Amino acid sequence: MPYLNYRDQSSWTIEAGQMQSPIALTSATAESIDYNAPIKLAYDSTVTYITDTGRGLEFGLHGTAWLNHRPSLAEQCHIHTPGEHTLDGQAFASELHFVHQATNGRLAVIGLLLKLGDPAPVLETLLANIPSQQSIKINLMALLPSRLSYFHYLGSLTTPPLSENVEWYILDTPITLSQDQLNRFTSFYSGNNRTLQPINDRTVEHFACHRLTVAN
Amino acid sequence: MPYLNYRDQSSWTIEAGQMQSPIALTSATAESIDYNAPIKLAYDSTVTYITDTGRGLEFGLHGTAWLNHRPSLAEQCHIHTPGEHTLDGQAFASELHFVHQATNGRLAVIGLLLKLGDPAPVLETLLANIPSQQSIKINLMALLPSRLSYFHYLGSLTTPPLSENVEWYILDTPITLSQDQLNRFTSFYSGNNRTLQPINDRTVEHFACHRLTVAN
Repeated sequence: MPYLNYRDQSSWTIEAGQMQSPIALTSATAESIDYNAPIKLAYDSTVTYITDTGRGLEFGLHGTAWLNHRPSLAEQCHIHTPGEHTLDGQAFASELHFVHQATNGRLAVIGLLLKLGDPAPVLETLLANIPSQQSIKINLMALLPSRLSYFHYLGSLTTPPLSENVEWYILDTPITLSQDQLNRFTSFYSGNNRTLQPINDRTVEHFACHRLTVAN
Repeated sequence: MPYLNYRDQSSWTIEAGQMQSPIALTSATAESIDYNAPIKLAYDSTVTYITDTGRGLEFGLHGTAWLNHRPSLAEQCHIHTPGEHTLDGQAFASELHFVHQATNGRLAVIGLLLKLGDPAPVLETLLANIPSQQSIKINLMALLPSRLSYFHYLGSLTTPPLSENVEWYILDTPITLSQDQLNRFTSFYSGNNRTLQPINDRTVEHFACHRLTVAN
């Protein structure tokens, strides 16, 4: 076999770019996670700021997410309109990304898909406070679906620097927002969604949660 | 703030190369993991092959490692002489890398540091069977220190493609091998160690395990 040249290590190159996000999720090809890997959220019931970052609307989060038994600190949530991931060929009106960082530096993002339908009361509080440098009382847990089942895969940030050490947890149950709410979001951003990236040889997994989320 | 240009996404570049391995580990600066994050190993007591890959000696593993509650399938173990990671400024005679892959594709490597001292009986069985395409009965658990305390950080493969989605678990207790054993390993490879890489802004963590490993 060819021998690796340890005397010329500066010639070695780093492979990257094969694990990018977002991707097209498909239920039929996802592999079931057959051990207990729940999402447990303990978000504070306040948003610490709401701002326009030049990439989207973002609000500050405090609290902890236990993702498959590992704690990650909640950092921020930002909004893409339209959504970035697709599910079984369906595109979504919007997608919220709850960004967390574990103590080892690993980023983990919970993705919440939104489609048109009934208004989401929690989003009214957000929309009424753009921008805000003050804490706003808001029950984020009430925004989430009643069961935190999810698709999981290894991907990247969807904005530069597009770093590839990101664990994705896309909730498989979309929530709804009204056309009026969507219009108000798209008055800020309409089109801050990255194009779909190739899955390459990655495995997408699915975890079916049978417990109801207990809202704060 | 500057707005990200979503209409020219092909101009976005992927940042990589800031999370490479190996690194210099230092006890004093490692952050303690304050929740229960044990390594639990269930390796089969057979090695499925022993081969020279052109990068080092490698033997095939079967079994599962539960790393911080996540299962990863054992794939192979390979040998670097001298070692790659340093600990508190000390370099090691050799380093074994037990490579695992989780169902989501994430690679996790357990690093075992070796210094000169008493011979390791388990290594005799390996040395006596290079190369082998047959399964060899060998009690790998007996090679490991009695407590699986470890340093943890996010890094990369230490050979090309140097991919950066690797979780490192470097056991903090070196084992010993004899000078004669080392000589026999270095007759195959002497210098298949990558140079130390910058830590950059990564956090190195330490988990102190208080339980004794139960050997098979």
